[in-house]
Amino acid sequence: MPIPTKALQKTAADQPFRVATIERRDPRPNDVVISIQAAGICHSDIHTIRDEWGAAPFPLTVGHEIAGIVEAVGDAVTRHAVGDRVGVGCLVDSCGECEQCLADEEQDCLNGAVGTYAAVDRDGTITQGGYSERVVVDERFVLRIPDGLELDVAAPLLCAGITLYSPIDRWGVGPGKKVAVVGLGGLGHMGVQLSAAKGAEVTVLSRSRAKAELAKELGAASTIATGEDGWAEAHKGEFDVILNTVSADLDLGTYLSILKPHGAMVNVGLPPAPQPLHLGSLIMGGKVLAGSNIGGIRQTQEMLDFCAEHGIGAVIERIGIDDVEAAYDRVVDGDVRFRFVIDTTALADATPAA
Amino acid sequence: MPIPTKALQKTAADQPFRVATIERRDPRPNDVVISIQAAGICHSDIHTIRDEWGAAPFPLTVGHEIAGIVEAVGDAVTRHAVGDRVGVGCLVDSCGECEQCLADEEQDCLNGAVGTYAAVDRDGTITQGGYSERVVVDERFVLRIPDGLELDVAAPLLCAGITLYSPIDRWGVGPGKKVAVVGLGGLGHMGVQLSAAKGAEVTVLSRSRAKAELAKELGAASTIATGEDGWAEAHKGEFDVILNTVSADLDLGTYLSILKPHGAMVNVGLPPAPQPLHLGSLIMGGKVLAGSNIGGIRQTQEMLDFCAEHGIGAVIERIGIDDVEAAYDRVVDGDVRFRFVIDTTALADATPAA
Repeated sequence: MPIPTKALQKTAADQPFRVATIERRDPRPNDVVISIQAAGICHSDIHTIRDEWGAAPFPLTVGHEIAGIVEAVGDAVTRHAVGDRVGVGCLVDSCGECEQCLADEEQDCLNGAVGTYAAVDRDGTITQGGYSERVVVDERFVLRIPDGLELDVAAPLLCAGITLYSPIDRWGVGPGKKVAVVGLGGLGHMGVQLSAAKGAEVTVLSRSRAKAELAKELGAASTIATGEDGWAEAHKGEFDVILNTVSADLDLGTYLSILKPHGAMVNVGLPPAPQPLHLGSLIMGGKVLAGSNIGGIRQTQEMLDFCAEHGIGAVIERIGIDDVEAAYDRVVDGDVRFRFVIDTTALADATPAA
Repeated sequence: MPIPTKALQKTAADQPFRVATIERRDPRPNDVVISIQAAGICHSDIHTIRDEWGAAPFPLTVGHEIAGIVEAVGDAVTRHAVGDRVGVGCLVDSCGECEQCLADEEQDCLNGAVGTYAAVDRDGTITQGGYSERVVVDERFVLRIPDGLELDVAAPLLCAGITLYSPIDRWGVGPGKKVAVVGLGGLGHMGVQLSAAKGAEVTVLSRSRAKAELAKELGAASTIATGEDGWAEAHKGEFDVILNTVSADLDLGTYLSILKPHGAMVNVGLPPAPQPLHLGSLIMGGKVLAGSNIGGIRQTQEMLDFCAEHGIGAVIERIGIDDVEAAYDRVVDGDVRFRFVIDTTALADATPAA
């Protein structure tokens, strides 16, 4: 039997959030039913539900930074048990058979991974996200949240955490390496903490020095203000890796100039417009410009375990189910340090509008 | 005593080549005096001496694809002996002490590697290239040409060969990998041969299918004509590595779309203008856009040994010392298969104009 579940929903981009009762699917043998305790707010949620990335499939519930407790499991589930502390990130399904899935890179599934919300699920329904009482997910896409991590602090790790952990791992951030993190928001603050915990020397690149003290508290050795003249010349050839978390236009050539020979600039922030790139800025010094998009399930679990081991979590501001729209506006204004997390437990007592 | 040496020289970008007598330095203890037998024509020679990359320091002799015989050695030379078959590529000196030099990446010397021509040498003179009877070079920058390689076939390997070998090595081109080589000119024809010898499946991307037969002879499995509609859609997500050897504008997003997830497009051709790049084409699939610039001396020797072992050489057209200007025009027109090599031995009997 499908499971009625309360959720924060919008019926159109310009409508307010409302509490609605949606249905979670009748659990399959491999499914885990999760009672959601906390849901992080990712900028992608805002882009999607405000139709900024095209027309969203309304009515819609977003949220892909989900933490909760296992409420029930299907007969064939072996990885999780009732009462376990678990999480769900940006993915809820993939083919499991293609070259990418077999390489633990489900986010790049050649047959199309299924996103946690606004995606067509394998049964043809539209997936509904984590601003909700509960969710039903195939156990392959359910992560263990280690004991050392609070659920609400862990929730944003499922997107913002893995988004930074994956390139940090791929591009060799570690002892003896100098890393520049561009932007100190929800993504950047994870980049600083994870890079520092990996043993690298971290520098934050921010428009001003306003966040220098915060950067230091998160583990950065220094801050460079990119609003000041001559900043790039002063740091020419200095960094092994740049992690760019901002979505604004930026002069790629200037940033590439502060890389060492053979260094890599990895972009996880997505400016809407094409950026001009002179290929000479890659050829001289054999440099790399790369992108990165979350990470696979195996690596996401590794990231959670790493965070627990190193005492790292998202720095969060907890909000109630009535505060989401206001929180969205603050995210857009950059007025959050560093991630909003919705206490979804209040949904249990809320009266649905639909 | 400095050594008088005949060389093909220009006194200005718009003047013809002439035979001049230049001076090679009095050999230092670590120097090797090389009797040049063959000098390849690289497109960089043309850009430089035609002032297309800024004002060149005239009078100037270019050429950085040099093969010859050791004529004399300084007292401290240990790596080479009189009579040895040797080569010199794009570099003739570097500090030898910085992080990059110590990592065998002399081309990225942090104190500035010295180019084979048109560069300021450590004694303050301007380096003069290989269209010449002889050259005097520090033994660290002199390569052994294995017995299996003819000198004139080896000469272009010192630039065109290493330019492709280095990214082929770095980006893991080998068995089980699908590689696209964009452009089948002096650089591209080395990319095809080297990639195929490494065990990869090679596809040539060319405007038309006119060179398909040539591509096959060089080791390519297939050719894609990028002038045909729908070529990219038909090969979406197919390649592990793209080696881009063309210097023309190209739609980076289209080329990135034919990479597999986590694939790398490496540029060794340098379009003069900035290219628009939507970072989303890197982020989705975690792709890489990289540059590469020749390679270090250790790797250049490795490349020469690899070529000899696999029977690979540049495919060349031999020309005389009076044919250089005409050859330049043919290079610019793309009318060469695949590299011109000047028989510099004729300089011995030429009468200098200066």
